[in-house]
Amino acid sequence: MWTAKVITLFPEVFPGVLGSSLVGKALGKSWNIETVDLREFGTGVHRSVDDTPVGGGPGMVIKPDILASALQSTQETIDEKPDSWPVVFLSPRGKLFDQSTAKKWSTCKGITLICGRYEGVDERFFQATGAEEISMGDFVLSGGEIAAQALIEATVRLIPNVLGNFESTENESFICGLLEHPHYTRPRVWNGLSVPEILLTGHHENIAQWRKSKAEELTRLRRPDLWQKYCEQKVETNI
Amino acid sequence: MWTAKVITLFPEVFPGVLGSSLVGKALGKSWNIETVDLREFGTGVHRSVDDTPVGGGPGMVIKPDILASALQSTQETIDEKPDSWPVVFLSPRGKLFDQSTAKKWSTCKGITLICGRYEGVDERFFQATGAEEISMGDFVLSGGEIAAQALIEATVRLIPNVLGNFESTENESFICGLLEHPHYTRPRVWNGLSVPEILLTGHHENIAQWRKSKAEELTRLRRPDLWQKYCEQKVETNI
Repeated sequence: MWTAKVITLFPEVFPGVLGSSLVGKALGKSWNIETVDLREFGTGVHRSVDDTPVGGGPGMVIKPDILASALQSTQETIDEKPDSWPVVFLSPRGKLFDQSTAKKWSTCKGITLICGRYEGVDERFFQATGAEEISMGDFVLSGGEIAAQALIEATVRLIPNVLGNFESTENESFICGLLEHPHYTRPRVWNGLSVPEILLTGHHENIAQWRKSKAEELTRLRRPDLWQKYCEQKVETNI
Repeated sequence: MWTAKVITLFPEVFPGVLGSSLVGKALGKSWNIETVDLREFGTGVHRSVDDTPVGGGPGMVIKPDILASALQSTQETIDEKPDSWPVVFLSPRGKLFDQSTAKKWSTCKGITLICGRYEGVDERFFQATGAEEISMGDFVLSGGEIAAQALIEATVRLIPNVLGNFESTENESFICGLLEHPHYTRPRVWNGLSVPEILLTGHHENIAQWRKSKAEELTRLRRPDLWQKYCEQKVETNI
């Protein structure tokens, strides 16, 4: 079963949101989560895991030896090949997480996620272990725990049988590089605003075309960066 | 006190991670969170909040009238001006959340966050209410709850007194548009890897310069998009 192993100073916050809704219902059936308490690898009376930064500056830095011990102990319980079990450190310095990464990881056997706290982690940890740094976006969190939950939710919902309705992951944002088209439901007129006529025609081809043009329009207006990639991709496909 | 009001079908997942660590210790002292259960605004025996999409397609769409009622009821409890109280719908179709948005919102009086589920929300809700769509990144979650927690954590930690050590938000990623420089702590040699000599000199100016050059190098290698913005900004500043 696909398993997320999470190294954290706050094991009690898992599964958190991941225990709710369809993803939560599939927990223990189609996927699993295990936490590893980093504190257990700390030293001294307070089981300390961090120390002051060499060269000065604010905050504390997680020690490389302690985090490496926690990772080694975690990986010893895994029989899979490294290719099918990524080791990821959540950090705003990392490569941006996106839907294609979620898709790729959903086909792995599992993942080990390391949640940082404090100012950061000693750089030598990355040199020694090859752990991949992954970012959820250009903002700073207090720790990696929420980022880990986002990454797990995005990935797990792509595992077969986790969401009841297969279709609902096939037809959504980013699948073809566009933002999703607008949705409408009943009532037909609400607050003086009507559902667009074309959606009421029952003409599937026209509706699909209208939705695509709306998705393109939205992407062009809101996300010029995605729009540019989409256009480049279209040119390549046509060649 | 800065307050996040969260409209959600899963009020029980809050505060979740936000109840832990320094952000959690400041909860109820320097900031607050209130949930609004969207289910209470549903209709019929099952308090249904959604319906099938007009024009066909998978999944369900949240009804505009029901979400608008929930929002109206939530906003009635707020005395602040709309400028100082943003209304945000978490959606992968939205504008990307980033550190400058977190900074801006941390100076507001509070925020109302709407967590979607299912396929989406009837587009007329946005036309009628002007709620802003905000995205955490180019990936798809099952609902807005984890995204809301990420947004709240990134914002709340910038509110004075939430983090004990003021300095620790001043010297981190994205503050000057760069990824953060590498950190080192004890031991001086670990696993055959040494702390860079310059950090041991005690020469603050040289250390600051070395850190800046490392931050620039990392940004150039990992995030050409941020690097380009940083260079453009530098040119503008020099003029």
